[in-house]
Amino acid sequence: MRYSALMTDLYELTMLAGYFDEEMHDKPAVFDLFFRKAPFQGSYAAFAGLAPALEYLEQLQFTGEDLDYLSSLGLFKPRFLEFLRDFSFRGSVTAPPEGTVVFPTEPLLTVEGSLAEAQFVETALLNIINFQTLVATKAARLTTAAGPDSTVIEFGLRRAQGPDGGLSVARAAAIGGVFGTSNVWGGQVHGIPVKGTHAHSWVMAFEEELQAFRAYAECFPESCLLLVDTYDTLESGMPNAITVARELRERGHEILGVRLDSGDLAYLSREARRMFDEAGFPDAKIVASNELDEHVIHSIRDEGGRVDIYGVGTKLATCHGEGGGALGGVYKLVQFDGKPRMKTTSDISKATLPDRKSVWRVLEKNGDFHLDLITSDGEEPKPGDRVYDPANPVRQKTLPHDAEFESPRRQVMQDGNICVELSTLEQARDRCMDQLQRLPAGSLRLTNPHIYKVSISQKLHQLRDSLVARHEP
Amino acid sequence: MRYSALMTDLYELTMLAGYFDEEMHDKPAVFDLFFRKAPFQGSYAAFAGLAPALEYLEQLQFTGEDLDYLSSLGLFKPRFLEFLRDFSFRGSVTAPPEGTVVFPTEPLLTVEGSLAEAQFVETALLNIINFQTLVATKAARLTTAAGPDSTVIEFGLRRAQGPDGGLSVARAAAIGGVFGTSNVWGGQVHGIPVKGTHAHSWVMAFEEELQAFRAYAECFPESCLLLVDTYDTLESGMPNAITVARELRERGHEILGVRLDSGDLAYLSREARRMFDEAGFPDAKIVASNELDEHVIHSIRDEGGRVDIYGVGTKLATCHGEGGGALGGVYKLVQFDGKPRMKTTSDISKATLPDRKSVWRVLEKNGDFHLDLITSDGEEPKPGDRVYDPANPVRQKTLPHDAEFESPRRQVMQDGNICVELSTLEQARDRCMDQLQRLPAGSLRLTNPHIYKVSISQKLHQLRDSLVARHEP
Repeated sequence: MRYSALMTDLYELTMLAGYFDEEMHDKPAVFDLFFRKAPFQGSYAAFAGLAPALEYLEQLQFTGEDLDYLSSLGLFKPRFLEFLRDFSFRGSVTAPPEGTVVFPTEPLLTVEGSLAEAQFVETALLNIINFQTLVATKAARLTTAAGPDSTVIEFGLRRAQGPDGGLSVARAAAIGGVFGTSNVWGGQVHGIPVKGTHAHSWVMAFEEELQAFRAYAECFPESCLLLVDTYDTLESGMPNAITVARELRERGHEILGVRLDSGDLAYLSREARRMFDEAGFPDAKIVASNELDEHVIHSIRDEGGRVDIYGVGTKLATCHGEGGGALGGVYKLVQFDGKPRMKTTSDISKATLPDRKSVWRVLEKNGDFHLDLITSDGEEPKPGDRVYDPANPVRQKTLPHDAEFESPRRQVMQDGNICVELSTLEQARDRCMDQLQRLPAGSLRLTNPHIYKVSISQKLHQLRDSLVARHEP
Repeated sequence: MRYSALMTDLYELTMLAGYFDEEMHDKPAVFDLFFRKAPFQGSYAAFAGLAPALEYLEQLQFTGEDLDYLSSLGLFKPRFLEFLRDFSFRGSVTAPPEGTVVFPTEPLLTVEGSLAEAQFVETALLNIINFQTLVATKAARLTTAAGPDSTVIEFGLRRAQGPDGGLSVARAAAIGGVFGTSNVWGGQVHGIPVKGTHAHSWVMAFEEELQAFRAYAECFPESCLLLVDTYDTLESGMPNAITVARELRERGHEILGVRLDSGDLAYLSREARRMFDEAGFPDAKIVASNELDEHVIHSIRDEGGRVDIYGVGTKLATCHGEGGGALGGVYKLVQFDGKPRMKTTSDISKATLPDRKSVWRVLEKNGDFHLDLITSDGEEPKPGDRVYDPANPVRQKTLPHDAEFESPRRQVMQDGNICVELSTLEQARDRCMDQLQRLPAGSLRLTNPHIYKVSISQKLHQLRDSLVARHEP
């Protein structure tokens, strides 16, 4: 994909012009990208968007047309526009691989470079990481709700934010465990399996439902999935689907299944399952759609629904839900010209964590996640260390004597070039599914989940304290 | 913008293949695009997205690469893929101009053509129209809440659905009355004024706030707007801003104003106004941002806040709000092979209105909107006509004896080519602002608004009845 260098908020450019004027633009700076609250009132997020974010950084360049437009605004001096002509991102990025399960407060991306380059990329990085991480998290919630015996597919293109919005949805949903998409372009660009059959309009274009089903089976004998609710699911749709299933079998094919798109999906799926089983089609699949989200899926399962595949559209593409709609990712200066920086505030839970830092995953003996720990850069945590709650430093904890440590982040870009092999979507999905299983009990609960602990080291706690003290009157 | 022909749900292609096999693909069909419920629990929507939708239709073509990909799926016959090689949209489209205030149930786009072309474009049209209309509606709500003396600007790029999502937001928000965007790419592509100054990180990159403000004023003496809440808005930010305003004035420049990005915005804006006025800067503007939506803006005004410009980000870009997040636009077959079609259902409010139709705006003497009327195509409504509530035909009404009629829709595409001059964004915005003023009292209320009536003619009512009767056992 080609990204415009102008895909940014104007203030990134006015600040850049200011730093340039002040001759501060070449001084080294470090920024952290993180979020303060897990979306959907959940406990975690599924990290996604790294590959496109790095692609953006590698491509970043102003075209002659871009510079002409900026010049036309009458805001910028010619000397600055000349500087932009050769501007690119030559810095470094540290990040976890896509599919990593991540938590509030801990740095996701750490971006280092000149103040100019590290500040300028803020808006674009937030745009890409915020949305893809949000979708991957929603997808992980849906996949979890569907359980191990059912799959989720993505149908949201028609409600997405424009064409490319739909493409981002398809990609990030795959990282969160969603198995296929209706979006053909998403299939082409990202290699995701594409899924879909027919709409109500197909049935309405024929005089009779049975005639419509027969025509569809004729055309797609090996992938015949019939939408059965245009007139009446149990009185008309299912009997007609079973008639067609028998006709297909006589010709040596098996029906794929049916889709239910309205009504009481728990009841209808149980009845449809019973009708298929009684008619001798135990392998026919039941697909359900219609305003599904993780809570609806949970209640369908709770009531003994027999759905094999959940098709989720609007509520996945728009990341619907309490505390959803947007991941509140932010991008904060944590070091400038070699010195730690932080935004002080009366609310310590909103203060940033200063300086370059490392993130550690503290593991139990069996590999399960105990807590995450943020330390100063270069600090090596040990079992038995005293650690602090960053939002409430009075709350302290001692790391278990048999704790093991893993570092989920690594340097992924050096001197403006990607310096590792990035995960494929399949690897990212496998990582996400594996890590979700290793969270403490209750962390995956849809409402009021167990909150996974993210702590800071004593050294980082003391650094923050000393900087706060310096700003106090 | 270049649209991929694969920006579609797979089922559009499987249905197309089916129609092709059945030799139905060339028969004439008519589809209506409409929504059933106004978003955000409001009474109306602001129609947007027509220009990009028509651009998509004009461009629609499968590339060799697209066909290779489709072939690789193993679903489609070579004869069908050959048909796609020459496939394009040669049909016609009827629609209102952008910025028109529109209502539930009434057709927005009517698409006529062969069944193949009119069905295939469903997903892409819904994707484009749903989202742009939703954003324009949210923008109109924000603009209305801000009142005639304040303006709204859009800051949402970092929370939008990917790069192009942000571009769609900037465009559609302008139609809904939003006056500028922080998105530089949006400014370049759509000619929207771009706005923005600096972030907290600018202030944090200097040792002292005053030093940061002075440096900014030095660089932008004619457009100096200072973010005053990094440390303490009233104790530090405002006094420092006023110091810089005085220094600017000594050098022959006037400060543009300040931005408040946290805290009690009603209180802080009143105090900032007072401090500026007392210091002799009555023209300095006050910009407010931080998780604004129409309800927060309404309450700031209600409490006597003195905000000149509201910067709205996340909640505009993501169309946050009750009943928001997605416009539930649908696309339904209403005529096939010359015969009216409809989806029957037990719930009459979900039944479609069959056949080709016209939409009429019934006006009062003074030009205000009385109600909207949907008739059969070719029918000319008259004062005194009996009209029906489409969701509850027992409720009837007689059109006033002095009613006047306007037709908000016109044919915009013929034989696959745009056949009218489309509105500019400014024209669309002016239209939207004008029409909002002509709605019945209470229609603009943010919660529990007056519901504007959309009726159907007697002839259309009878046609629907006769089709329902035919499907009943």
